[in-house]
Amino acid sequence: MRDVVEIGIGREAARTYELEDITIVPSRPICSHRDVSLDWQIDAYRFDMPIVGHPTDALASPEFVIEMGKQGALGVFNGEGLWARWENPEEKIAQVREIALDNDNPTAAVAFLQELNKEPIKEELLTAAVKKIYDSGVVTAVRVSPQRASELGPLLVDAGMDMLVVQGTLISAQYTTDGTELPLDIKDLVHGTDIPVVVGGCVNYHTAKHLMRTGAAGVIVGYGATEGITTTGEVLGINVPMATAIADAAAARRDYMEETGGRYVHVIASGDLNSSGDIAKAIACGADAVMAGPMLAQAQESAAHGVYWPIVAAHPANPRGAVVPVLDEYEEEGEEYSGPSLEVVLTGPSSEPFGTCDLAGGLRRSVAKCGYTNLKEFQRVQLSVH
Amino acid sequence: MRDVVEIGIGREAARTYELEDITIVPSRPICSHRDVSLDWQIDAYRFDMPIVGHPTDALASPEFVIEMGKQGALGVFNGEGLWARWENPEEKIAQVREIALDNDNPTAAVAFLQELNKEPIKEELLTAAVKKIYDSGVVTAVRVSPQRASELGPLLVDAGMDMLVVQGTLISAQYTTDGTELPLDIKDLVHGTDIPVVVGGCVNYHTAKHLMRTGAAGVIVGYGATEGITTTGEVLGINVPMATAIADAAAARRDYMEETGGRYVHVIASGDLNSSGDIAKAIACGADAVMAGPMLAQAQESAAHGVYWPIVAAHPANPRGAVVPVLDEYEEEGEEYSGPSLEVVLTGPSSEPFGTCDLAGGLRRSVAKCGYTNLKEFQRVQLSVH
Amino acid sequence: MRDVVEIGIGREAARTYELEDITIVPSRPICSHRDVSLDWQIDAYRFDMPIVGHPTDALASPEFVIEMGKQGALGVFNGEGLWARWENPEEKIAQVREIALDNDNPTAAVAFLQELNKEPIKEELLTAAVKKIYDSGVVTAVRVSPQRASELGPLLVDAGMDMLVVQGTLISAQYTTDGTELPLDIKDLVHGTDIPVVVGGCVNYHTAKHLMRTGAAGVIVGYGATEGITTTGEVLGINVPMATAIADAAAARRDYMEETGGRYVHVIASGDLNSSGDIAKAIACGADAVMAGPMLAQAQESAAHGVYWPIVAAHPANPRGAVVPVLDEYEEEGEEYSGPSLEVVLTGPSSEPFGTCDLAGGLRRSVAKCGYTNLKEFQRVQLSVH
Amino acid sequence: MRDVVEIGIGREAARTYELEDITIVPSRPICSHRDVSLDWQIDAYRFDMPIVGHPTDALASPEFVIEMGKQGALGVFNGEGLWARWENPEEKIAQVREIALDNDNPTAAVAFLQELNKEPIKEELLTAAVKKIYDSGVVTAVRVSPQRASELGPLLVDAGMDMLVVQGTLISAQYTTDGTELPLDIKDLVHGTDIPVVVGGCVNYHTAKHLMRTGAAGVIVGYGATEGITTTGEVLGINVPMATAIADAAAARRDYMEETGGRYVHVIASGDLNSSGDIAKAIACGADAVMAGPMLAQAQESAAHGVYWPIVAAHPANPRGAVVPVLDEYEEEGEEYSGPSLEVVLTGPSSEPFGTCDLAGGLRRSVAKCGYTNLKEFQRVQLSVH
Repeated sequence: MRDVVEIGIGREAARTYELEDITIVPSRPICSHRDVSLDWQIDAYRFDMPIVGHPTDALASPEFVIEMGKQGALGVFNGEGLWARWENPEEKIAQVREIALDNDNPTAAVAFLQELNKEPIKEELLTAAVKKIYDSGVVTAVRVSPQRASELGPLLVDAGMDMLVVQGTLISAQYTTDGTELPLDIKDLVHGTDIPVVVGGCVNYHTAKHLMRTGAAGVIVGYGATEGITTTGEVLGINVPMATAIADAAAARRDYMEETGGRYVHVIASGDLNSSGDIAKAIACGADAVMAGPMLAQAQESAAHGVYWPIVAAHPANPRGAVVPVLDEYEEEGEEYSGPSLEVVLTGPSSEPFGTCDLAGGLRRSVAKCGYTNLKEFQRVQLSVH
Repeated sequence: MRDVVEIGIGREAARTYELEDITIVPSRPICSHRDVSLDWQIDAYRFDMPIVGHPTDALASPEFVIEMGKQGALGVFNGEGLWARWENPEEKIAQVREIALDNDNPTAAVAFLQELNKEPIKEELLTAAVKKIYDSGVVTAVRVSPQRASELGPLLVDAGMDMLVVQGTLISAQYTTDGTELPLDIKDLVHGTDIPVVVGGCVNYHTAKHLMRTGAAGVIVGYGATEGITTTGEVLGINVPMATAIADAAAARRDYMEETGGRYVHVIASGDLNSSGDIAKAIACGADAVMAGPMLAQAQESAAHGVYWPIVAAHPANPRGAVVPVLDEYEEEGEEYSGPSLEVVLTGPSSEPFGTCDLAGGLRRSVAKCGYTNLKEFQRVQLSVH
Repeated sequence: MRDVVEIGIGREAARTYELEDITIVPSRPICSHRDVSLDWQIDAYRFDMPIVGHPTDALASPEFVIEMGKQGALGVFNGEGLWARWENPEEKIAQVREIALDNDNPTAAVAFLQELNKEPIKEELLTAAVKKIYDSGVVTAVRVSPQRASELGPLLVDAGMDMLVVQGTLISAQYTTDGTELPLDIKDLVHGTDIPVVVGGCVNYHTAKHLMRTGAAGVIVGYGATEGITTTGEVLGINVPMATAIADAAAARRDYMEETGGRYVHVIASGDLNSSGDIAKAIACGADAVMAGPMLAQAQESAAHGVYWPIVAAHPANPRGAVVPVLDEYEEEGEEYSGPSLEVVLTGPSSEPFGTCDLAGGLRRSVAKCGYTNLKEFQRVQLSVH
Repeated sequence: MRDVVEIGIGREAARTYELEDITIVPSRPICSHRDVSLDWQIDAYRFDMPIVGHPTDALASPEFVIEMGKQGALGVFNGEGLWARWENPEEKIAQVREIALDNDNPTAAVAFLQELNKEPIKEELLTAAVKKIYDSGVVTAVRVSPQRASELGPLLVDAGMDMLVVQGTLISAQYTTDGTELPLDIKDLVHGTDIPVVVGGCVNYHTAKHLMRTGAAGVIVGYGATEGITTTGEVLGINVPMATAIADAAAARRDYMEETGGRYVHVIASGDLNSSGDIAKAIACGADAVMAGPMLAQAQESAAHGVYWPIVAAHPANPRGAVVPVLDEYEEEGEEYSGPSLEVVLTGPSSEPFGTCDLAGGLRRSVAKCGYTNLKEFQRVQLSVH
């Protein structure tokens, strides 16, 4: 039974676990890694691997999103980011990158990001960027905030969006309101859209189930928590360690499936993913796919070439993310950025031994060594906790 | 039930939790942060946010205390500090700061602080400083030690004190004595005073309840424990991790309220507060307000401009605190200190992403994301422990 | 009973322990260390100490393997390493070493290792190396991968191999297959060989018991996990903390012995061994012997003179190990490598106080202080966990 | 009930606690620190504070032992150290110190110590050193190893020894033997001596009780474990975290007292003592006194002036301790060592805020704040564990 402790007289808390607390325990005959399918299908869309890119401007230029799709993964474009606000987003991002690399203190780059995001969204810029992705033939997924989803949704559908990602740090199925604004109901949003909708983040069973009941195709668990990068825990005190958050959402998926007589909502884990082994653990805890951020930032094709920040770093009043170099070394003046290609990061081959390249290869071999051939079965693999 | 372990044969200890062990778990529909009230009212005094300043000379010049009040928080002046002993406390504090910034070893600055505190308290200096605060119109709270409370109390009331804070590292409702001194009874102190009295610190249920029974308006939980700064744990071996200490004191508040048919004593948490998220966690564990120290030291208006020490660092024989720079970098020779204003620290806006500025904003958004609109309800928010 | 926790609703995991979590608790009259026998006998072969060398090229030149035998331990030669592929393996290893010492980043050395291992195995080179060991008179143990065991086994037996070590990162008794390759059954392998076979690694009770049922003389528990060196945990997410993995395998040994009416299969622990104290803990958890890697790399006689990598660092697509200097300082240009002799590492005497030399001496004194005189009894010593 | 966990199938271990895991929880009316007595009496000898010096040559010159006594503590002289072997031990120790300060690697100093300890013990040197202590009028305590206790005991008694300390890393009441040496029985040793005997170290209930049954006046718990300094844990894998080890020995004391109808054997805790707070915790767990090592090494009067090593660092074959500078900075060439006096270390006053000076003052205030006036009562103080 769930371990509940009394932290003080009469005040209880449930014990929770990080991905780094758990390990996967193989206990069946090993399969060939060539027999393993990493296929992930959500609604009508099929991917070669269960890896989704975080829709931050640090990664997700239209070109990056297209390349994610070409590699068999899912890129997500930010419908409220710099590409929707500026005619020269590449230049702006290069400036953010330069400030971040020149300053130990993350404040300067955050301040500049806040400034850049004050520029209003321009429909023609947003439309052009989304069309560009759509024209490439890859699945076109766009992220909007819950607050602007109703306004931007139709426009994005017209531009070719295949999948809507309604994502805030933490969202709930309903929002209460002070009367000065309209109440927000994610169910209305989902029902008002013909395309599949992914919603999140959330960190517990109840919110996950309520989000599933909105009719969403997928629910994001976690808010991309990464030490020193996404700081929601420090700023708000809110978090649930990811192994527990994922397992709880998977329980919500199972209960909701029973409640609906078979509707399957995908659980997408976002947070504390630092290696292919962490991806394997997230799936083993019950996730159907993962949303990767900092691990993808090293790729040649990432918009900020080795510098990462989460969307929430640009929050106008209360930023909860830093702008952080993810590598140890960068190019000298006059040189070009020389990170690995996105292909190498996702599917190798690589000489990097710490699980930060060939993410799909590491996952595939983990599944094979545990004696499974697909991810749905792998969700039942034996776990240990330390 | 409370988790009690046997540390050795026949020797038991209750298991306890730090604020960093717990997280807040949102599980209700999100509110607008504009609907959230952070109001805190103790006795007749109302504040915009539940933040009290630690009465150390490192922070609490009369000007700092006044600015705290103007920002809607509560500053506390130290009735036994350098302002009560020297005509030029600013100069003395500048010297302490200089010694601290010039020396890796904290001993030199502590020695100088000990020396400065040998100077006797001068009633006219103390009176003038308190009057200055009173004249500004803010709530005038003054801290005295239990030992000198009877002597200094009447003088402070005459000078305009609105609230008396009787604070030692750890206090108890009664003190036993060796006969060479009068026994001390906090109840007598409280009853002999017309203004509300806050007393502390304490670290467990029983002491908290006994302090509540003295008639105090508020009880301080903890002694400002901060790693590398307040060293009572190293020197005395005494501590209780703050999440447990706060929850136990909140249980004492509830039991005392029942015992008295409704008298509500405020619990003020002091210790291990490093970010707005920690403040949210302290409230979530049951605190009504927090006493912040090192987090406020970065403010422009702090007396020692980015250098912090707790009151107990100046203990004549047995110092239990260090004099510590709280920032990574300081002004060059000839430049002015350039920390953020107290306003930015308390209410932002800020580009600092780690929860050390906009303390009220972080708390407000935490409460909103958990679906509450005031702090009393937020004390019931779901918690997890890791 | 085994401690099982719920990491999330409906998802369980068994609690596990690292060697560093446990300590040995002496509770009997102390013996003289001169009375302690560290003898280890597996099949017909007897050793003075229960220490096996990891068959990585970083250690195991034929000369190193011979010296291990002469010192009373068991060296294992890698039948698929550089000695089987190149005529001048010493030169190649010197190059790997140089790249590793010149680069902070482990990628360059791994890439070079991958390149070197693309060279095909040449039967005459392999045969010559094995014969050389055989001719020295020591026990000739050779490691092959499960995939190539059938192919290389007969050849190695002809060359003089006394003991076959079938070792992959993680293996299972059977392998399933996609039909493009023959299914693999370790039982067939073992039964088709006249000499004793050691198989592994594995990390849990069930796999250990299945491997025992193949008829193997010994089972390797663990895959040589060492922080920053063997990175299977990061890449695959698979691991079981060693104290638990060893104790579980020892339980499999006991149950298998009952099942067979007395067949004893040796448990060889590989992973998290950083000192003689760790060796003692591994035996105390139930191991019969340990497979040491990085601790032996400091020896004069090691092939790469103070630089270590596990076999899996050379994996062509998915390397799971780094090439790492194990010492703080290395020889200057023109000087010779000056590590301790293998004799000092294994049996001292030494002035090194951290348990990394005189491995047998440390183990012997641990057994004596606990009041035992042989390793089989020492497996019952009292343990504590922290 | 004692928490026993299964680390693997069928293999149990008791859960144990370090001093740093526990905290002292005051829950009674505070006393004046002037009312607290730190008196410690063992057999006929009374001390002002319950602090014993570790008998390492790094501390315990005859002059240091005398000064310990004059300050009200108990110094212990090493009957088998350099003062018993060399005519100029101060010079030898100065050389050890120089080697340690000049080398990052501890091996060189350990090797020199091993060399120095090969010199045979000379009765006249030993006798002269002990007489010198005796003549000063302080309690003259001398440490010998179990192996040489019978031989050296009478000689030491003749020289004026008041108390015999029979101390090895870990000892037991009986020793088994291989027949080439006489069996050793501590009971015979104790009964053959007219003066009080202290014996140790041990780490569990059973060994502690058996040692108590020898008739010893005191039992040492622990072997001086200190991270990076005493490395018995790394070399032998043997340890029990000190909070548990002390509480278990205190339980043995209680049970033995019942068994004998009132004989009280003192428990002296040795290990993991880094501050006055740790001393308070050790007493709170049940110790009657502590044996301090590295904390005393900073004193002016210590033999090696700020460099420390435990006795076992000089073990001829299997050293289990390093030679380590305990301060951050040392005197320049030509300057004198400038650490605090032993008086300041033991009784202050001091400006050092981390609990490493005024050890008695910190303990005294801890006892007072918990509402006790003597150490025997303080052993019942409430504890928490984190």
